[in-house]
Amino acid sequence: MQTLLLNKDQVRRLIDMRQVIGAVEDAYRAYSSNQVAQPDYIGIHLPDGRGEIDFKLGYHKQAEMISMKAHSGGFANNPEQHGVPNSMGTILLFDATSCALICILDGSLITGFRTGASGAVSVKALARKNSRVIASIGTGNQARMQIRAISRIMQIDEIHAWSRTSAALAAYKQDIEREFNIPVTLAASKKDAVENADILITTTRGKGDLVQANWVKPGTHIVAIGTDQRGKQELEPEIFRNAKIVVDSISQCSQKGETFHPLANNIITMDDIHGEIGEVLLGAKSGRTNDEEITIFDSTGMAIQDNTTARSIYQNALANNVGAFFSFFE
Amino acid sequence: MQTLLLNKDQVRRLIDMRQVIGAVEDAYRAYSSNQVAQPDYIGIHLPDGRGEIDFKLGYHKQAEMISMKAHSGGFANNPEQHGVPNSMGTILLFDATSCALICILDGSLITGFRTGASGAVSVKALARKNSRVIASIGTGNQARMQIRAISRIMQIDEIHAWSRTSAALAAYKQDIEREFNIPVTLAASKKDAVENADILITTTRGKGDLVQANWVKPGTHIVAIGTDQRGKQELEPEIFRNAKIVVDSISQCSQKGETFHPLANNIITMDDIHGEIGEVLLGAKSGRTNDEEITIFDSTGMAIQDNTTARSIYQNALANNVGAFFSFFE
Repeated sequence: MQTLLLNKDQVRRLIDMRQVIGAVEDAYRAYSSNQVAQPDYIGIHLPDGRGEIDFKLGYHKQAEMISMKAHSGGFANNPEQHGVPNSMGTILLFDATSCALICILDGSLITGFRTGASGAVSVKALARKNSRVIASIGTGNQARMQIRAISRIMQIDEIHAWSRTSAALAAYKQDIEREFNIPVTLAASKKDAVENADILITTTRGKGDLVQANWVKPGTHIVAIGTDQRGKQELEPEIFRNAKIVVDSISQCSQKGETFHPLANNIITMDDIHGEIGEVLLGAKSGRTNDEEITIFDSTGMAIQDNTTARSIYQNALANNVGAFFSFFE
Repeated sequence: MQTLLLNKDQVRRLIDMRQVIGAVEDAYRAYSSNQVAQPDYIGIHLPDGRGEIDFKLGYHKQAEMISMKAHSGGFANNPEQHGVPNSMGTILLFDATSCALICILDGSLITGFRTGASGAVSVKALARKNSRVIASIGTGNQARMQIRAISRIMQIDEIHAWSRTSAALAAYKQDIEREFNIPVTLAASKKDAVENADILITTTRGKGDLVQANWVKPGTHIVAIGTDQRGKQELEPEIFRNAKIVVDSISQCSQKGETFHPLANNIITMDDIHGEIGEVLLGAKSGRTNDEEITIFDSTGMAIQDNTTARSIYQNALANNVGAFFSFFE
């Protein structure tokens, strides 16, 4: 009995955004067809402002694969005091037919990739086919990851970007133009960015001013990434009133996603949630039906996305003889 | 940043029951002095009668150590169909100051050792000092582990053992007499075994006939191990009526330990639970105060026992240059 070990460099070489998009679609379809078990995650908040560590468990029934992702974040003093990143991750994969531990892989890259892929999956399913212009509210790692993923599945002519700080905005413009050769316009305001967009992506920490409803033009697809827990918000709830609302998980998004806010403000009811993205992918619910409707994809992130993404990397490693084997028992 | 890997053979060589007893005492003291965070465990029950896998998280604040134990069990077809044991375990240790993953060790031996040690800790704290005779109801691995631990902290003159099957009983006698040189008497009935005991240990699956109250002589210390979830029971609840009841965790034992049954039957109230073993070790609660009282230690098992036991093994490995290092990131 051998366990495959994959370090961060190996994961970086084995991960392929096109495959991750496929893995995330697999995860969404499985979730919305009762092929997933995902208990509530457990975690520990460390004292003294240190940060937290969470453990997220997912079981993909069809693939007979169990994943556990340990993920820590918020340890701002780590680089200086301990010589390690402020955020780290490790994923365990178990063959569910025996519960043998088949792979341990660095998990610090996968969350970013699978979250980026989620936006692209929603664009395929919900954005207008003639979409060419993206507004990016937020210019951090995940804002870049969204472009990395979406550029794989459509042609992006232009990005209007906005950030609270001009230094972050300038860095984003430089990185995106160099890596993807897509021109980035520095927006003077959120409003300026949003008004120009076919697709609006929000990836902030969800603590700033809200995107206002009257900025969003008909036909826009909104990818709402930043809000994954209570206390975060990126969109004026009014945007939801007449939009087609698609979520990764109805239970999660109604409790801690962007969708929580219009529900709490009685702007929508649960019945106004069109469905889960998995249902759209399965054909059980419609996608976009005309060029005028505003579509919203609310992503809170699910353990099963880690599961299918890690499985794809594991299979790539086996196929390419990458990684080291270790025997935990004879 | 390096992670130490320890396989089962290495853990077996590094584990020392005397140290495990100390580690479990440390765990109990920490738990009863608010130095432990232990979220509810999460798990997945596999379909088709396969078994389950659980993930148990513990944080020892003083030691700044976080542990996660993945433990699977009940996979009866594993040896034949998959060439792996029916139960497997893996423990991750994180330095809580940074949440760096410092050790991954095979966890299949630790549960047995730390559970054995828990009985010995209770014997030190609660049994009569002149105890010499043990009754063992149950003759499986954990019954042996209890003797391995208790023989480290007292002289055992004789064991009266009982099992449902005579083959298991004969194997137990042979193993115990060879390994520990303690004579084992095969009891004709549970009653015969219990009536002879200074210390009564119950380690069955908790599905059989109950030990009856009128069999238990004054001054007996009872180590109740087998009941760790609803549906299991080893003792007639009447035994609790006038006994000194000590538990590993009040919240766990009142919900799913042996102590649940006398509570559910209104034989005792929560106020009749004398306290947690950690409180006794800390001196906050008395131990045994005379030779006549019946003491009961109800053990359901806690993640923090895995934490302190694994930490002790990790430290032994570092001190003895055992194990292999792996870098999950640069």
